Amino acid sequence: MPEKLENFSRLCIHTITTKPWTLEECVRGYEAAGVSGITVWRQVLEPYESVSEAGQQLQDSGLEVVSLCRGGFFPAETAGGRRKAIDDNRRAIEESHAIGSPLIVLVCGAVPGIPLGEAREQIADGIAAVLPEAQAAGVRLSIEPLHPMYADSRSAVNTLRQANDIVEKLDHPNLGATVDVYHLWWDPDLESEIGRAGSKIFSFHVCDWRTPTRDLLNDRGLMGEGCIDIRQIRDWVETAGFDGFVEVEIFSNEYWATDPAEFVEKIKKAYLEHC
Amino acid sequence: MPEKLENFSRLCIHTITTKPWTLEECVRGYEAAGVSGITVWRQVLEPYESVSEAGQQLQDSGLEVVSLCRGGFFPAETAGGRRKAIDDNRRAIEESHAIGSPLIVLVCGAVPGIPLGEAREQIADGIAAVLPEAQAAGVRLSIEPLHPMYADSRSAVNTLRQANDIVEKLDHPNLGATVDVYHLWWDPDLESEIGRAGSKIFSFHVCDWRTPTRDLLNDRGLMGEGCIDIRQIRDWVETAGFDGFVEVEIFSNEYWATDPAEFVEKIKKAYLEHC
Repeated sequence: MPEKLENFSRLCIHTITTKPWTLEECVRGYEAAGVSGITVWRQVLEPYESVSEAGQQLQDSGLEVVSLCRGGFFPAETAGGRRKAIDDNRRAIEESHAIGSPLIVLVCGAVPGIPLGEAREQIADGIAAVLPEAQAAGVRLSIEPLHPMYADSRSAVNTLRQANDIVEKLDHPNLGATVDVYHLWWDPDLESEIGRAGSKIFSFHVCDWRTPTRDLLNDRGLMGEGCIDIRQIRDWVETAGFDGFVEVEIFSNEYWATDPAEFVEKIKKAYLEHC
Repeated sequence: MPEKLENFSRLCIHTITTKPWTLEECVRGYEAAGVSGITVWRQVLEPYESVSEAGQQLQDSGLEVVSLCRGGFFPAETAGGRRKAIDDNRRAIEESHAIGSPLIVLVCGAVPGIPLGEAREQIADGIAAVLPEAQAAGVRLSIEPLHPMYADSRSAVNTLRQANDIVEKLDHPNLGATVDVYHLWWDPDLESEIGRAGSKIFSFHVCDWRTPTRDLLNDRGLMGEGCIDIRQIRDWVETAGFDGFVEVEIFSNEYWATDPAEFVEKIKKAYLEHC
């Protein structure tokens, strides 16, 4: 088991975690708290006339931009819908480049009427279509398998094994996978699939699974509030060679109703104790 | 793909599906509607001084008792807790025998503090402990893998593969598995694991996955209201040799607030159209 984390040099926070804050408030708030990295959700870029303005703000800060959330959502009923999705991923690559983010996290998508097998093929096709542009922009793409409770409408990729299968099939230096403990903690094959992914683990997300979970989307717990053995999973990804940021991504109606600056302090405490 | 079901000779309803009804009301209501089978949840037995009284009522009806729900919940923090769970499963075997049910469905259990690997061992140990009594009583036990969103507190067995692993390990004529489309539809290995289970598929449960799902427990859809290809999965279990009841098990705050007799008619319609 790895040592506890003793400082915040690998702590990254997702802007969605402090949802009430604008990007500027996130940057100031994280910096003031000694957080090292930031993962930018596209929503916080919307108020800017030009994304490079947001990029300048990020470059002027002491924060490292870890990733952009999120690309993906490739499956669609029609060829037109799938083209639209690919175009949106092209925009995400431009945005990622403009804000100095080396990585885009892909929530691959699913559509209730489309069989999962077909959706998975459309996902692989969509990723293949945008990989050359990602490479040209110096941006990596990371498939984030989502919990099976999101297989209806958010992602047809629900285990790390499925993500690894796509990564191996497309076999491209700019394509890897994200391990998010919330989505994957239950999987009996998690340790072996993390080993299989190896250097293809491009990012690592943490939070916790609450009992009871009162909402399918927005009731994630702070690390330590739930049943996930986060340090065990960090051990597995580090044994596989990962040494990047530990990214705190918490969707929580409960925490979003509290003061973000206080929440960041709670995150720091939980990070040292439970990650 | 199998033919549509053309009559109700294989239609079974779980008493929990018509939760507002007592057992007596379920029996009368299902009979009046031409339903053929009933799966009895233990809650509806509680009002009876003696379970055999309920058994008599069931035997006097034209309904076939398909199974008793539910045994299981084996993992516990202490040896005493695990003994208590085993005792409860012994009572379930007695009850099953007393009401003429040939099968008990096992929701295997999970406890937030117990690592899933340990919980799985405790589950196998608990099942092994009660199998001789089940056999003596002429009752079969069926492991129902639960959706991974219940891995925290309801079941550490979350895929059919895991259920098959336990069934093969214990290798006992009275032990098999239940395929519930709600829990398993997302699994890319479902078809192959159904083939692997073969004659060990002891029962088959249907409902549907709604988008959005508004509650983790009690927002299941009527067949056809969601994204599950139920007929495809029925094809797989029948190809594997299963020819038993198609059991409708719907937990739904929405439907529980409506008239159960009308709900049973909706179920019959959905059964013919979507199963």
